[in-house]
Amino acid sequence: MNKRPIGIFDSGIGGLTVVKAIKRLLPREDIIYLGDTARLPYGTKSTDAIIQFSRENTNFLLSRNVKFIVIACYSSTSVALDTIQQASPVPVIGVIEPGVRRALKLTRTGRIGVIGTALTIYSGAYERAFRKFSDSCEILGRACPLFVPLVEEGWLDHPATELIARTYLESLKEDGIDTLLLGCTHYPLLLAQIKKVMGDINYVDASNEVASELAKQFAERGLENLDGNGNVAIYLTDLSMNFKEIGERFLGEPMNTFSRISLREFRLGS
Amino acid sequence: MNKRPIGIFDSGIGGLTVVKAIKRLLPREDIIYLGDTARLPYGTKSTDAIIQFSRENTNFLLSRNVKFIVIACYSSTSVALDTIQQASPVPVIGVIEPGVRRALKLTRTGRIGVIGTALTIYSGAYERAFRKFSDSCEILGRACPLFVPLVEEGWLDHPATELIARTYLESLKEDGIDTLLLGCTHYPLLLAQIKKVMGDINYVDASNEVASELAKQFAERGLENLDGNGNVAIYLTDLSMNFKEIGERFLGEPMNTFSRISLREFRLGS
Repeated sequence: MNKRPIGIFDSGIGGLTVVKAIKRLLPREDIIYLGDTARLPYGTKSTDAIIQFSRENTNFLLSRNVKFIVIACYSSTSVALDTIQQASPVPVIGVIEPGVRRALKLTRTGRIGVIGTALTIYSGAYERAFRKFSDSCEILGRACPLFVPLVEEGWLDHPATELIARTYLESLKEDGIDTLLLGCTHYPLLLAQIKKVMGDINYVDASNEVASELAKQFAERGLENLDGNGNVAIYLTDLSMNFKEIGERFLGEPMNTFSRISLREFRLGS
Repeated sequence: MNKRPIGIFDSGIGGLTVVKAIKRLLPREDIIYLGDTARLPYGTKSTDAIIQFSRENTNFLLSRNVKFIVIACYSSTSVALDTIQQASPVPVIGVIEPGVRRALKLTRTGRIGVIGTALTIYSGAYERAFRKFSDSCEILGRACPLFVPLVEEGWLDHPATELIARTYLESLKEDGIDTLLLGCTHYPLLLAQIKKVMGDINYVDASNEVASELAKQFAERGLENLDGNGNVAIYLTDLSMNFKEIGERFLGEPMNTFSRISLREFRLGS
């Protein structure tokens, strides 16, 4: 047993969907969540910048004595996971591999679509993750940069959202995929619009898979906390006008306590 | 005469429209441009964060020995101009007042619309700027958060862009304004779509007004550079995948030289 908290970071508050999934499956675990809201979004920044930000986020979580780190941000997982795994004294998992394993279980045709930010898609991280487990599947990626701002604007069923989804996804539809990975924390909130275009195929939101992976690794390594209180401490690097409203959309419950912190002491030179 | 460069900062590369206007009117002036691309956008962050970022940007420009500072970012001008003016040993202007003065010259009915980021609109900065010059005009604001990501995606004439413009602007149309201020560096690129909704009214893009204001102040203060080479040095805090393509849209010419810099030494505690 290990009573130290789980550390989770994301570029913003979309990663709270992962918190929600962990709370459901591992209700006794304490969680430290860090959202780098002062520098979001990550998906339009450079690889170098994301690696640097991710290291700073990791250093903050380590300073809070976490036993395990989850990178809840797909852009960060895409380009920084290896670096963070090498640098961290505690185990680190990202959000890509758990989703990839789930997609491989679900697919029948082996034609799998992935949508995400430009950084995630063009990094090739999903392609590499699939190749670890399968030589035969075909991976078709599509960057959807407007999906995050649409979710943050709350336009989950605006006609413009459907039109944009159609523009992004029509070619994936024509490609005849049978499984689609939602490779960004925000995209599950657009699932209804995405389904209108893509129809009756398999959809993979990795949040639940990440929680299952944690449960499995905790059991193997004796890291479970069986008598904790399930406290969630939320740290954000900026408190913008509507972060609470957006955060609650992801967390699925009121977000009553949060702190603004500075990462100044964790900053790296460059 | 003063041969030191003009310093300009923006959250990203949209402020290059101001560089373009200055180059046209004051072709001999050297310019140092700083785009804080690692932390963009500013319009969705908090007032505190924008003030801090703006101070760091100012300190960088001052370290380059600029003679005058232009805040080319509307969000930053909205909430940080006073702070920066008080802290800076050289004169500082923003992008709001020059546009406001122009709008007051153009309006006949005194009903004036302003569009911008949520931060700009809800800060009340335009309302306050108008009140300096006029008690009688009526100011109607509307935040348009999706316009910046649409421009960055390059969807200048996508049907979704028109639909989104219609959603944001329909109420301003009904309010019967006769002048509309484009209160964000990115919005002039959407002018064709905005005109489809708003029709034949006056439109104000402050870039040219800012250049005129500079020319006027330089003449008054003896700050002109009459035999410089018109060098423009572009510094960015991050070089993302498509910054060059987007930057050239704003600058209106090839962007051949630029440097990535860190603001680490200019960072403020908090």
